[in-house]
Parts: sequence; structure tokens; C-alpha cells
Amino acid sequence: MGKQLTGAILAMGSPQTKPDIRYRVGFSVPDPVVYVQQASKKYLVVSLLDRELARRVAPDIQVYSPDALRIPRALRGALSGWIVGLLRELGIRTVTVAADFPVRAADQLRRAGLRLFVADGPLVPERAIKTRAEVGRITACQRAAVQAMRAAIRLIARARVDKKNRLRVRGRLLTSERVRRAIYRVLVDHNCTGEGTIVACDGQAATPHGIGHGPLRAHQSIVIDIFPRHLEHGYWGDLTRTVVKGTPSPALKKMYAAVKAAQAAALAKIRAGVSGRRVHLAAVAALARHGFKTGLLEGKAQGFIHSTGHGIGLEVHEAPSLSLRPGRLRAGHVVTVEPGLYYFQHGGVRIEDTVLVTRGGYRKLASCADIFQV
Amino acid sequence: MGKQLTGAILAMGSPQTKPDIRYRVGFSVPDPVVYVQQASKKYLVVSLLDRELARRVAPDIQVYSPDALRIPRALRGALSGWIVGLLRELGIRTVTVAADFPVRAADQLRRAGLRLFVADGPLVPERAIKTRAEVGRITACQRAAVQAMRAAIRLIARARVDKKNRLRVRGRLLTSERVRRAIYRVLVDHNCTGEGTIVACDGQAATPHGIGHGPLRAHQSIVIDIFPRHLEHGYWGDLTRTVVKGTPSPALKKMYAAVKAAQAAALAKIRAGVSGRRVHLAAVAALARHGFKTGLLEGKAQGFIHSTGHGIGLEVHEAPSLSLRPGRLRAGHVVTVEPGLYYFQHGGVRIEDTVLVTRGGYRKLASCADIFQV
Repeated sequence: MGKQLTGAILAMGSPQTKPDIRYRVGFSVPDPVVYVQQASKKYLVVSLLDRELARRVAPDIQVYSPDALRIPRALRGALSGWIVGLLRELGIRTVTVAADFPVRAADQLRRAGLRLFVADGPLVPERAIKTRAEVGRITACQRAAVQAMRAAIRLIARARVDKKNRLRVRGRLLTSERVRRAIYRVLVDHNCTGEGTIVACDGQAATPHGIGHGPLRAHQSIVIDIFPRHLEHGYWGDLTRTVVKGTPSPALKKMYAAVKAAQAAALAKIRAGVSGRRVHLAAVAALARHGFKTGLLEGKAQGFIHSTGHGIGLEVHEAPSLSLRPGRLRAGHVVTVEPGLYYFQHGGVRIEDTVLVTRGGYRKLASCADIFQV
Repeated sequence: MGKQLTGAILAMGSPQTKPDIRYRVGFSVPDPVVYVQQASKKYLVVSLLDRELARRVAPDIQVYSPDALRIPRALRGALSGWIVGLLRELGIRTVTVAADFPVRAADQLRRAGLRLFVADGPLVPERAIKTRAEVGRITACQRAAVQAMRAAIRLIARARVDKKNRLRVRGRLLTSERVRRAIYRVLVDHNCTGEGTIVACDGQAATPHGIGHGPLRAHQSIVIDIFPRHLEHGYWGDLTRTVVKGTPSPALKKMYAAVKAAQAAALAKIRAGVSGRRVHLAAVAALARHGFKTGLLEGKAQGFIHSTGHGIGLEVHEAPSLSLRPGRLRAGHVVTVEPGLYYFQHGGVRIEDTVLVTRGGYRKLASCADIFQV
């Protein structure tokens, strides 16, 4: 029963931080809410403070505030009290929750005699298949990322190289922070925030999640990874390019060519029905054909050390996965395709685009030039 | 034991979304990690991908990657497997987790024979007392909010009123969205994001969490609530002002005077040792003295329908609370003081500043003019 999500589903938390709730409820408030769905009927408990707002923006949902529920004395003031009150009102005794449902509330609900199943996969699996409107929202973020990428690359291209091989624009050192700021400015004009944007040079670029700090250098790879989130609707985009100001080493050039070939190989496999594993292995094979190894080198993970891609929507990482994990692509999935190579001796290279999976293949959500030397 | 947080504490999740982990670990990556603390010793499990980054930025923490742990076969690939592996390595059999620890992992750990206590309060209660560096970070966000507020109020002041009482700037309708965009632009220059910024006029301002949409109107209250989060260090600020373009109704004028008096009354109570309840009741009493009632009017919650304030730091709402809930203020707490009045007939008024609690009273983190008619 837990696996099939029959019976009622239950979620609690702030719509701002719980995509399942935001997806179902269609609005975002900071305070936590309780959401229950049984077949096609949806129920919400919100504080009195948010009740009128919820009723206005979510007319298809039956909205309660806690004062309308019979809440056990021991659970007054707790969200689990709202849940028990609502489920008694609805005559529901068994619910399915997501893996990240809070343990304290789960313990309280079980003590109150409710049966709790924990879903193996996503609580709202239909979120992975995007509607036309959702594809439009992700595309808007992706276009914002393209504009911001152009601004960042222009700034790096404009830089002069000083005697210590550091980049300077208008005399001032060009740092990761300064490029990031330029990116943020473009994104905000598109109503997006760019928190976590990576602008990482040389050794820093060899750790895929380091966001990068300090002066940028000539002749080294600079990985720029922009994943904007829209400030109103909350959807994400994701785009990465790698550039070198000046002359890349032969090793870097080879890495770039290999990553580009790996992205092309992965993209060539993408269509509805194909397994994520097959797409990932196409990228792995292309990198191997170019002579690049993955594994522990000098005790550190180096090479192609992450998956080829991930779904994207109301979360920046969501189902499906382009990796060794099981699962097939379906039309309407939106995924990133982002092979990379990371060696502490040479730096990092990653190229990433975001595509819509279609029956016959894929469609890039936004087009961004692929420039290596600037 | 659960209450006193003796023994080891355990947290899991992404530092980006789990402030307890970010506070302890001092860096932010999107992928989930496992964090264990026993007395002053700290341990972290991160993916191989993030291991070098974690070792570089968190030298006081012993960093593991899963390949170095003995993980039970059934839990391979699950974060709970990392936990079991780490706790076996450390010889720990009992841990305390936060209320929001994920239920699936909790069930798995209990089945693996671990004893789990769920903390009644915060897992890292010392987060409520801010260090000088933290006060500096919150102050930077608060100053950004002040600059953004000035830009927003300037824009509204500059507007012309058309025949339908709508505001226009350079001929174009001045909307909530347009003011919000102007706010975002200022915030990004301070390296902050302003997601959720409220610019809400007339009836919309009567629901405290509605962010506001569409044309702004003359002679009506416009609530502007800016809570910037810093894009690098992740701390928040929080500032609200209420303005009217044109002539407020006598009722609105009375509401504004009452809210201003309520904020002054609450602030006058703030110092280390005072209960949050006492501060809240001072605001409630001031509003009552001005003749304003709170409760259900025509079936809707109206009046002063929220608490007087909340702690702020790595979360926009955190301990302590200025409300009926128990708890005393301590030196080093940073709290918002934000009484408000909401009536669907008249609109909303809220005034909010963020202050540092001191032994003798409080200090505003940033000073913002208090202008009603613009």
C-alpha cells in the first residue's frame, strides 16, 4: 500500500520549502500547513492568519483552520494536533507520508492510533512529468541563465591579464565574487535569484560543488554553473559553461573536447522510454574513449565523479536521474545533461544544458553558445 | 536525556536547507550530509564528490565519505546507511535528533538497533544567541533592507494618481510586482535575495502573508515587508513599513498611530531576562488602549492576528518568540518587533524593526525612517 500510494496522502510543512505541498496547493506561505489528499479531494489546514489567503488562491481545496477541528488536548499547539483533528473529521485512519516526514509528528500520530506508511518514492510522482505551463516556467529560468551566462563570459572576455596571470577589469581584480554579482544582477531582471551560482577557477573548479572564491586566473578553466530559481513561481533552470581566458593547456583542451563529446553522446540517447542508466553510460563511454579515467587518484575522487543529469522543476534536483539508478525517461520529463571532468592537476570542465524529453528525442529549453577560449 | 541533549546529536540533510547543519559545519553544499556531534567532537559524512571541499573548509570536523564506512547491505545507497556506518565506527548507540528528522531514516535506524531521542526544542539551542560576527551578518541584511525600502518608498512617492485612483510612474501602472522588482535590484547589489517580499495594498494588505499583486492604489495602505537573505552566508534581515500615497482615511490614521504606539510599548519592555510573553502583551495592551479589537469579525480573523516578533538568524523565523509561548529573552538574541492591525474594511498596517537584545534593553540593527504619508 505504501508503494502504490493508495489511501490518503499526508504532508506537512511550509509550502515554501516543501515542493510537494507547493505543487498541490499552488501558493506559497512561510508558515507550515497540513495537506491531506484522498482520491481527488484535497484538504488543507492553515493558521487563522493564512485562512482567507488560502481560500482565495486555492478554491479547489477545502481549507480548515485549527479552531474548526477537535484537537486532542495533548497535541494542542502542535501541527500533529491539526493532523489528528483533520483526519478524525474526515474519518481517515491510514495515511502515506513522504520519506522526509518529521519523526516527532510521525511518533505522535502513531501514538494517536493512526497507521502511517512511508512512501518509497516521491509522494507526488506526477511532479516529474511537466505540463506545458511548467515547461514554460523552467524555460523562462533557463533563458535568464543564458542571459546571465553571456554577461559573465563578456566580463571575463573583457578582462586584461596582469603579471601574476590574474584577470583585471577596469584595473580591479576580477574575482569569482565579482562575476557572481554580475550574474545575480542579470537574473534579478528576470525575477530570478541565483543563490549558489558557481564561478570556480583552476583547483577550485576540481570540486564540483565549490562555488569559487577570489581572483580568477588566465590559462585556467573557469566553471560557471548558474541555476536560477524564479522568485514568484519557484521553478528552476540549470546551465553550465566552462571558459578559459588566454591559452588552455593541451590537457585542458583534451578534457573540453571529451566533455563536449560526452554531452553529445548522452543527448543522442535521450528520448522517452530509454533508461537513465543508458544515457549516463553513453557519457561515461565517450569520456573513456577520449582516454579519461574516473576513480581515486592520489586518494581523491577524480574524473567524471557525478551523474550525467537530474530532473528539475520545483526542486533543482528531482526525479528522474541520469545515473546508474533505475528508471526510464518519459515524455514530459525535464532533465539536465551535464557531464564533467575534474582533476586537481588540471582543473574542472563541465558543460550543461537543460532539455525536455520528447517521444522522439529531446528539445533544449534555451540555446546558449558553447565557447571555450575567450 | 532527550531534553538535555546529552549524548551524541545527529542531523542529516543539505546544509543549504538545514540551518543546524550549516551553523555547525560552516559551509553549504546542495547535497545531503550526515552530521554527528559528541561533546566537542564533530563528524561529517559527505559524498566522495564533496569530501575534498568539506575537508578544506571545515578543518575542525572529521570528514568521512561512505566508502570508508562499513554500511549494512540493506542500507547501501541510503543516508541512513551512512549514519549506521558512522555510529558503528564511533561506537555510539544512542543519538538525539531534531523534531524534523526524516521518518524513514528514523524507522531504519531504530530497526538497526539504535536508540533515537527526539529533542523537544532546537537541536542546536546556542544558535539563538548570536555572536558578534552573526550580528554583523544580520545587520548587513538589515541595512540592505533599509536601502531597498527607501527605493520602494521613493518610487511610490514619485507616482501620479490616475482617475481610477491607481498609481502610475512614467505613465505605466505602478504594481506590487514593479515595486518588488525595484526592491530586488537594490538587494542584489548587497548580495541579498528578497524572495517573498510583500508589497500589498488595501484588501490584500489585510492578509499578512499575501505578497501582493496588481496595481497599487492611492489613499490605501501599502504594506512593504522586506526580509532579505544573504546569498553567501545565508543570514536574514527583516523590515516592514506601511505607507499611503495620498490621503489615508481617519480609520487608517488611527490604526497607524496605534501600531506605532504598540511597537514603542513592546520595544520599551525588551531587555535580557524579560519573557517574550510580556513584550507581546505590551503590544496587545497598547492596541486595546487605542480601541482596536482582535478576533473573528464577520467570520474572519481580524485585528492583531499574529505574534509581536520572532528570532532571526540562519532562519527567518527561529527562537525566541515574542508571543504567548513560554521563554525569556537573553542578551544576544536578535528579534523582530512587528505589531500590526488587519481589517478587511480598512486594510493592513504593520511596522517592523529588528533589534539585538542587550542586558539593559535593545539596539536597532539598522535605522529606517518611519514615514506614513508619501
